[in-house]
Amino acid sequence: MTPRTAAAPRRRGRPGLDLATVLERSVELFIERGFDGTSMEDLARHLGISKSAIYHHVSGKDALLGLALDRALSGLEEAAFEVRSAQVSPAARLELLVGRSVAVLVERLPYVTLLLRVRGNSETERAALARRRQIDRLAAGLVQDAVDSGELRPDADPTRTARLLFGMVNSLTEWLHPGSTPAAGELADAIVAIAFDGLRTP
Amino acid sequence: MTPRTAAAPRRRGRPGLDLATVLERSVELFIERGFDGTSMEDLARHLGISKSAIYHHVSGKDALLGLALDRALSGLEEAAFEVRSAQVSPAARLELLVGRSVAVLVERLPYVTLLLRVRGNSETERAALARRRQIDRLAAGLVQDAVDSGELRPDADPTRTARLLFGMVNSLTEWLHPGSTPAAGELADAIVAIAFDGLRTP
Repeated sequence: MTPRTAAAPRRRGRPGLDLATVLERSVELFIERGFDGTSMEDLARHLGISKSAIYHHVSGKDALLGLALDRALSGLEEAAFEVRSAQVSPAARLELLVGRSVAVLVERLPYVTLLLRVRGNSETERAALARRRQIDRLAAGLVQDAVDSGELRPDADPTRTARLLFGMVNSLTEWLHPGSTPAAGELADAIVAIAFDGLRTP
Repeated sequence: MTPRTAAAPRRRGRPGLDLATVLERSVELFIERGFDGTSMEDLARHLGISKSAIYHHVSGKDALLGLALDRALSGLEEAAFEVRSAQVSPAARLELLVGRSVAVLVERLPYVTLLLRVRGNSETERAALARRRQIDRLAAGLVQDAVDSGELRPDADPTRTARLLFGMVNSLTEWLHPGSTPAAGELADAIVAIAFDGLRTP
C-alpha cells in the first residue's frame, strides 16, 4: 500500500522549544529521511533552533531516538500487561491485544512508525528490538493458547500467525495520517473481522 | 514483528563486478542504512570497488535505486496483469493476486523490501509510488468486485480491506530472510486461510 509522504508545516525560528516539541518534530524528520540520513544540522534546521538548544535537552540524536522508541514501546508494553491479566478466554485476549495495539498505534502514530523502521544499527535500536521481541512472544503465546483451547483452528502455526496478524496491525502505519485517522476501535474491528472471521461470505 | 538485521558476507577488493552484482549488493546497503543514509563512498567500500567502477555501470545512487525499484515493480505489475485476465471469479482473482504477490516478494525479497521503504523523497521514489498506487487500485477493485459478486462479506470496505490484506502480505518482508524462506505457496496459503476463512474454529 502507498505510504504517506511527510509534509508537516514548518515553524522556523522559534526559540525555547520544550523537549516534547523537540522530540515530536525530530521524529517527523527521522521518518522523512531515515534516522541514519538525519544529522544534528538537519534537526536544528527543521526545528528552527540552534544545535546547542537541542543539546540543552538531550545528549544527541541517539538520545532522541531512545526517547521516541520508548514512547512507542512503553505504550505497547502497557497494552500487553493489561491483556495478560484479563480474565477472558485466550482468543478474547488475542482480540484484546489487537484492539489495544491499534489504539496505541493510532495515539502514538509517529513513534510506532519509527519503531517499525528500526533495524538494529545501534545499541539503542537493538535494545528496542529486544523489547519488541518480548511483545511478539506474548502474541505467539496467545495464539498457541487459543489453538489449545479450541477457539482457533489447529493448523494455525502460532509464530507465523502472530506475525501475520500483527503485520496487518502494523501496516496501518503505512497509510494512516496523523490527525485524520478513523477511530481506533473501528480499525481494530475491521482487522479482527478479517483475521478471526475471514472475508468470505459465510 | 522483529526485522532481520542485514549482515551479508563482504567480498572486498574484487575487481570487475557486473551490474547485477553491483545492484544486488547496493540494495543490501540501502536496506541496512536507508537510501538517504548511504553515500557513494559507502557503496564503494561495501562493494570493494572504486566509485568510478560504479559510475562505469550507472550514473549514480539514484539510478541504482531506480533499477532496484523497477525490479520489484515489474514483478508485481506482471502479477497484476496475469490476474486481471484470469478467467475465474473475482474472489479467486483476489486470492490469485495474493499468491502471485507473495511469490514475487519471496523471489525478489530485497527489491520489494526496498520498495516498501520508499517515501517519495525524490522523482525516482515518487514515480515508484505512482506505480504502486496503480496496483493498489487493482486490488481494491478486486475486493469491490468480490463483494458485488456476493463472495465476500458486504461490510468489507474495498480500499481498507485491500490495504489490510496486502499489509499482511507486505509484512513478510519484516521477517523473511533471503535464502531461508518457506515456500511461497505455503506462505500464500497461510495468508489466504487467515484473510478469507478466518482464524476461528468453524
